[in-house]
Amino acid sequence: MPLSLLLLPLAALVAPAPRFQADTPDPAVMAKIREEGLKRSQLPQHLAYLTDVIGPRLTGSPGLLRANEWTKNKMIEWGLDARLEPWGPFGRGWTCDKFTASVVGPTAFNLIAAPRAWSTGWSGTADVVFVDADSPEALAKFKGKLKGKIALVSPIKELPAHFTPQGSRYTDEQLAAMASGALAGSGRPRQGGGGGGGLGADMTDEQRAAFQARMRQAQMVGQILAFCKAEGAVATLSQARSGDGGTIFVEQATVPQVPTAREREEVRQPGAPRAPRLNAYQVAAEKLMIPQIAVGAEHYNRIVRMVQAGESVSVALDLKVHFNGDDKSMAYNTIGEWKGTDKADEIVMAGGHLDSWHTGTGATDNACGVSVAMEAVRILKAIGVKPRRTIRVGCWSGEEQGIFGSAAYVKAHFGTATAPGAEHAKFSGYFNLDNGTGKIRGVYCQGNTAIMPLFAQWLTPFADLGATTVTARNTGGTDHLSFNSAGLPGFQFIQDTIEYDARTHHSNMDTFDRVQIEDMKQAATVLAAFLYNAAMRDDKLPRKPAAPAGQ
Amino acid sequence: MPLSLLLLPLAALVAPAPRFQADTPDPAVMAKIREEGLKRSQLPQHLAYLTDVIGPRLTGSPGLLRANEWTKNKMIEWGLDARLEPWGPFGRGWTCDKFTASVVGPTAFNLIAAPRAWSTGWSGTADVVFVDADSPEALAKFKGKLKGKIALVSPIKELPAHFTPQGSRYTDEQLAAMASGALAGSGRPRQGGGGGGGLGADMTDEQRAAFQARMRQAQMVGQILAFCKAEGAVATLSQARSGDGGTIFVEQATVPQVPTAREREEVRQPGAPRAPRLNAYQVAAEKLMIPQIAVGAEHYNRIVRMVQAGESVSVALDLKVHFNGDDKSMAYNTIGEWKGTDKADEIVMAGGHLDSWHTGTGATDNACGVSVAMEAVRILKAIGVKPRRTIRVGCWSGEEQGIFGSAAYVKAHFGTATAPGAEHAKFSGYFNLDNGTGKIRGVYCQGNTAIMPLFAQWLTPFADLGATTVTARNTGGTDHLSFNSAGLPGFQFIQDTIEYDARTHHSNMDTFDRVQIEDMKQAATVLAAFLYNAAMRDDKLPRKPAAPAGQ
Repeated sequence: MPLSLLLLPLAALVAPAPRFQADTPDPAVMAKIREEGLKRSQLPQHLAYLTDVIGPRLTGSPGLLRANEWTKNKMIEWGLDARLEPWGPFGRGWTCDKFTASVVGPTAFNLIAAPRAWSTGWSGTADVVFVDADSPEALAKFKGKLKGKIALVSPIKELPAHFTPQGSRYTDEQLAAMASGALAGSGRPRQGGGGGGGLGADMTDEQRAAFQARMRQAQMVGQILAFCKAEGAVATLSQARSGDGGTIFVEQATVPQVPTAREREEVRQPGAPRAPRLNAYQVAAEKLMIPQIAVGAEHYNRIVRMVQAGESVSVALDLKVHFNGDDKSMAYNTIGEWKGTDKADEIVMAGGHLDSWHTGTGATDNACGVSVAMEAVRILKAIGVKPRRTIRVGCWSGEEQGIFGSAAYVKAHFGTATAPGAEHAKFSGYFNLDNGTGKIRGVYCQGNTAIMPLFAQWLTPFADLGATTVTARNTGGTDHLSFNSAGLPGFQFIQDTIEYDARTHHSNMDTFDRVQIEDMKQAATVLAAFLYNAAMRDDKLPRKPAAPAGQ
Repeated sequence: MPLSLLLLPLAALVAPAPRFQADTPDPAVMAKIREEGLKRSQLPQHLAYLTDVIGPRLTGSPGLLRANEWTKNKMIEWGLDARLEPWGPFGRGWTCDKFTASVVGPTAFNLIAAPRAWSTGWSGTADVVFVDADSPEALAKFKGKLKGKIALVSPIKELPAHFTPQGSRYTDEQLAAMASGALAGSGRPRQGGGGGGGLGADMTDEQRAAFQARMRQAQMVGQILAFCKAEGAVATLSQARSGDGGTIFVEQATVPQVPTAREREEVRQPGAPRAPRLNAYQVAAEKLMIPQIAVGAEHYNRIVRMVQAGESVSVALDLKVHFNGDDKSMAYNTIGEWKGTDKADEIVMAGGHLDSWHTGTGATDNACGVSVAMEAVRILKAIGVKPRRTIRVGCWSGEEQGIFGSAAYVKAHFGTATAPGAEHAKFSGYFNLDNGTGKIRGVYCQGNTAIMPLFAQWLTPFADLGATTVTARNTGGTDHLSFNSAGLPGFQFIQDTIEYDARTHHSNMDTFDRVQIEDMKQAATVLAAFLYNAAMRDDKLPRKPAAPAGQ
């Protein structure tokens, strides 16, 4: 602190300004929240049910609808008013009914692999061809060679050993840097690998060449897929986005070509803007689509090296899928509501997205967030408090395809920043949790500096649990953006990274066993306190003077 | 150095004793070995062929026989005399012709799993029953409940996050401790997890209880399998030995019960000692065997939790296997020989084991060792030296089942310590490499202190490559023991651990991509130097005065 402060009388130091005093958390309530949240948590059971029993929850799929119903019923059981709110149309869902993949000749081995979501299906056995093409000229050489074949459409990938930990927690130094804004860029620092790495100034010539080759190949993907389809290949195998050792990161299939204007008209979603590239989930694009299977790097690399060694490799695929609904199908958010008392017309919200990718069970992304939000409300119900404002829980969908569900909800209920609806003025704030399974270390204020001293006070009772840091920084990529875009206060918590980048974020191993249960109990406890404090204070949460879109 | 040495004339310091001078490596030859080994290595191609193309090499399987032939032909191509030398009978080999495993209801997901070697096959779909039994009384409750079912026979396993690196290299401090004998116990220190962990003094009560429960369950395995077989279960699913994230460590199936005296007589290998427990690979034990499938922990845990949540889970298995040969089938070592000059009747050897487990491609265990030994000889051939002693390369088999192949070779050629054969006196030394893919950091002398100054000199030219440490310590678990047991000098190199314990040692991910190629070039270079020095010196390598069996 500055030297001049030392000259102030002690009383001046211990008596905070009234504005801050009003937000000093009630110690008795905070103690009850801790007791309920840390010692009588019901979060593990809910997380296990969402992940193990219901399983993956791709938007538009029966899995997500089952999760919508289950979260609704669970909140009703706790005395909330809960319902499904439709949004859309989202378009078709997709379900994988069966998938196995094996090399069957010249030797036999089972593949660690997964279909990309919205891939079409194919079952049979075919020889593979390695389409080793990083230019249209190289691709043209495969003319006439792919009929009835399975095409390998990615290059070999180098797999460095794991000399650094895949999991980590923030150090005090990292948190201090975040609080001071000293960390470059916005959002959380990425850790532990999992990604491919970009073009860096400190690259060797060899690394630079390899990077550039990868980029050329990546730019060729659409062309290669379209070529394979046109040439009559039956399916494609490619490298998973990242991962190794049996962990594969897999998202959606690619519509293999920029459709012609006519095809675009035929397949585009009614009312949707004309896009240069349509997403598979938006359109009934089977006629453009080729089955797309992501293969673990060790297995993919091995097949390519077998081919390069002159072996004739046969692969058996059994991929059975079906599409759910059609281009006009709606998707659903589950919304739970707990009516307030004297300020019941004002709203405080918490949430996470209920939808997930399809190869794991969407545990850290984002059954964790949903379970924490639900548990936070259960804690408050259990300790018998009567919040003044109405508390809502949002279990969003379509997040993975573009933060669609929360955006639709915000627009429907609160309008936009420039065309606010009636409830816009009644909204206090939204708290989101969607950075995996790490405990809460603090909160991103998205440039809302007025709120920082408030949140600093709210965190005080949880400093011993590691929640200490208030940063002005933005973080992106998830549902709090929908609120910020509408000029409403939306926040995302800072969470310990754990293994989010390296092991779970969109991977086949995003499963219950990757969850740090004690961390999630802590998160629910801190969130319960934030919800309570926001619901009880005299004023709504302060807003940014001007909220640029997307922040 | 001690102060008194500073008073000696300079000449006394630079002139080593004659005995050491005789072993000072020839700098010109060492330079050529480095040049050939590090810059013109052919090791990557051979390693890739052995692993990617030939694939797993379970003893007794066609894969191993193909590798026997390939290594023989490669050495003949280099001008060695090479042949297959039979040993045994080993008993039946085993080949997995097809394997897929999926949960098909109530939701569908593909399992990361593998049959245990020598498992019998089964194809079909059945409901699972969780045989949660850590005592005979608990097991008895499943009487009448397993007919036609797939039994889950392991408990749930906790999967901690990876907060420490899976890969590591030895630090200077660790190497110094090894050299001084300060590290407790024998052999290399285990690193990076992968194992279950033993009973430690620093355990909490909770950890101790969990450990004891695991031990009770482990002791029950044979009983549970026998019970499942007797009750008519069609297959068993169990936890892989260790691993997570898609990496599973899998070895052989268990003959599910201690056979009765009569059954033991019926199935035991002719001439074999009566064992209280027969190994699956020794006997045609189908009538005792139940199909045994190891499942990745996340998937296994999920199935158990689904069952515990009241779901009725169906699993589809397609496991097709066949056995190779019969109880009398022989196995083979590949032996390459390069005739020496004036001391051609004396023998220096290097080797590794060619056989592997079945779920990966046996890359670090132990295509690396075989490739390094072969490459070391290729290097010496390529630089045009004429070794005085005969150099032999041993590509062993049956190592994974009990170090059988090298033991049989040693007995056949050199006899035993108490009944030495004619060549026993002509044998100089054997160098083994079988601790994965790390570069050579030094050598274990197995208590042969006389040899330590010699090896220290031989390592000197490779200090800049990290090979520096000579330790008197023993290390076990692989083929150099066969030589030591016969009273012959047999050595294993100290190698950087890399990811051996955590990711590759008997896992489905022991594949070419886990190999650190530059490390292996270094290892071949150092081994070539050792072979050359051993083949050229006037005397054979010194022996231990008395060699206790097994060291």
